[in-house]
Amino acid sequence: MTPTSRTLTVAATALTIAAASLTAVAQQAPKPEQLIKWRQSAYQVVAWNTGRIKASLDGSYNKDEVVKAANTIVAIANTGLGALFPPGTEQGRGWHDTAVKPELFQDGRKVGEYAANFSREATELAKVAAVGDPAAVKDQYAKLTRTCKSCHDDFRAKD
Amino acid sequence: MTPTSRTLTVAATALTIAAASLTAVAQQAPKPEQLIKWRQSAYQVVAWNTGRIKASLDGSYNKDEVVKAANTIVAIANTGLGALFPPGTEQGRGWHDTAVKPELFQDGRKVGEYAANFSREATELAKVAAVGDPAAVKDQYAKLTRTCKSCHDDFRAKD
Repeated sequence: MTPTSRTLTVAATALTIAAASLTAVAQQAPKPEQLIKWRQSAYQVVAWNTGRIKASLDGSYNKDEVVKAANTIVAIANTGLGALFPPGTEQGRGWHDTAVKPELFQDGRKVGEYAANFSREATELAKVAAVGDPAAVKDQYAKLTRTCKSCHDDFRAKD
Repeated sequence: MTPTSRTLTVAATALTIAAASLTAVAQQAPKPEQLIKWRQSAYQVVAWNTGRIKASLDGSYNKDEVVKAANTIVAIANTGLGALFPPGTEQGRGWHDTAVKPELFQDGRKVGEYAANFSREATELAKVAAVGDPAAVKDQYAKLTRTCKSCHDDFRAKD
């Protein structure tokens, strides 16, 4: 094999590997509708669990129930939901048409701030839930839901 | 007030409170379609997160990503998903028609066993993920997904 043909062979092999890698990535990358389904699902799970805490606060307080719910919310708050909002998912249908406003994809600083607030208050709620004082849980629950509302107000279209 | 009229007044008050409580319960109790949406959402979040772990195992290992995903899965595994499968939700449509088989509502012992297996292996996965050895994560991930499969095989209708 001449040096030139050897170089070409190596280059061709590298290209083949690169093409195979790109194919693998393309196969693995979830489609926008899948990502939108996942993010809609994640917020539904948050809604289920905030509802469990509210039911406990409004009715007979159940510490175990509140702890489980708070632990679920904090896990989702800290899981990195931002990965479910990549470019290309500004519009589209998951379980239903996305309700996200275009502004979410444009104001990364504010989105980051809101996400940090959600994470911080959810983390605090899980701590307070573990202690189990209903009055403290009620206060912290209110702080958490305010972080939901601020983000919904700015970045979620009205129903 | 005579003793009789006093007794009647007390009884009437008790009945009014009971009726108000029943109304509150009826207002608060989520409808079957909402419960089915929540359970479908919870398993979608699990699927998203098992996918993140698999992507890390198949590609370039990202400890932080795997930890977040495992923490999310264990929170959902331990949150009490059984509450989303009450009587009256054997059939119905959440995001889509429920795929659950009638057997799930009949074989509580086996369901409880499967749920405990899911919880145990998810808890172990979160521990192993925190250590960060990819080979150990791969083994534990396989154990976790076997618990998913056994439950799907017995209690989820085929697509």
